Amino acid sequence: MKILGIDPGYATLGYGVVEKKGNKFKACGYGSVITEAGLPMSERLERLYDSLRNIIAEERPDVASVEQLFFNSNAKTAILVGQARGVAILACVKSGIEVEEYTPLQIKQALVGYGRAEKNQVQMMVKTILGLKEVPKPDDTADALAAAICHGHSAETRRRLKELNIR
Amino acid sequence: MKILGIDPGYATLGYGVVEKKGNKFKACGYGSVITEAGLPMSERLERLYDSLRNIIAEERPDVASVEQLFFNSNAKTAILVGQARGVAILACVKSGIEVEEYTPLQIKQALVGYGRAEKNQVQMMVKTILGLKEVPKPDDTADALAAAICHGHSAETRRRLKELNIR
Repeated sequence: MKILGIDPGYATLGYGVVEKKGNKFKACGYGSVITEAGLPMSERLERLYDSLRNIIAEERPDVASVEQLFFNSNAKTAILVGQARGVAILACVKSGIEVEEYTPLQIKQALVGYGRAEKNQVQMMVKTILGLKEVPKPDDTADALAAAICHGHSAETRRRLKELNIR
Repeated sequence: MKILGIDPGYATLGYGVVEKKGNKFKACGYGSVITEAGLPMSERLERLYDSLRNIIAEERPDVASVEQLFFNSNAKTAILVGQARGVAILACVKSGIEVEEYTPLQIKQALVGYGRAEKNQVQMMVKTILGLKEVPKPDDTADALAAAICHGHSAETRRRLKELNIR
């Protein structure tokens, strides 16, 4: 199973594709899409959408995994990030892949086994699980890979729960 | 000039197309796109996007006008509405029309001449300016028409300011 993890943002959108075979994970393409601050928001959203469509066409993941966002900061930021998240989800749907969402707690739980783990603990686990030499940069890329690994761990359980219709 | 006003939301997205000839406004198509609460968010976003693409293809507006959102409520709602806003903006860009944004204050100012006008005052002005028999329902539709009329009033000024590069 090939999983595309996405960490949505309008300035930096992190992505990471991992392949799961048995219990092993392998990193495929990963990185981040940057949009310049000077561009109109409409153009930035289009670039995010087009880039993701291209990444999906190239990597051909089976499913996407996106972190659910929670903000303590102001609602204006939340709207802007929401906009980026909307076009990211649309890029997946329009490419024919399903989107699964996970809370930060679920992702930390899946990677570190502890829902209140620190950011650097999650990043170290991403590096270890994927056998990388370094923690992927920027943070958005590492977070995207973490979301992908989380779905790799949780997909089977989710599928069973859906079948039982108790999710 | 034909203007598409959009009031974005994930459950109800209001839209309204108005045509401005000289100083007169005429209502073309208007209404709202509803997405069912039971659907996955990815599907709701796709429906919003596809519906808007169809509306734009049918009505062929020259430009879109979208209200800028401000929230006092929680950030979770802001993210969800932001997602809908993101795909709405993308639908315009992908249809080749530019997107202009106006604050609620600017819209009230343009329609009622008073930035702190009440919602029903704005709606009455929409009805009057467009020569409609009733205030369009739901509110989202009336708000979308208000955004479109606002751009009709402001487009010329905005264009000049842009030329002077002082916006």
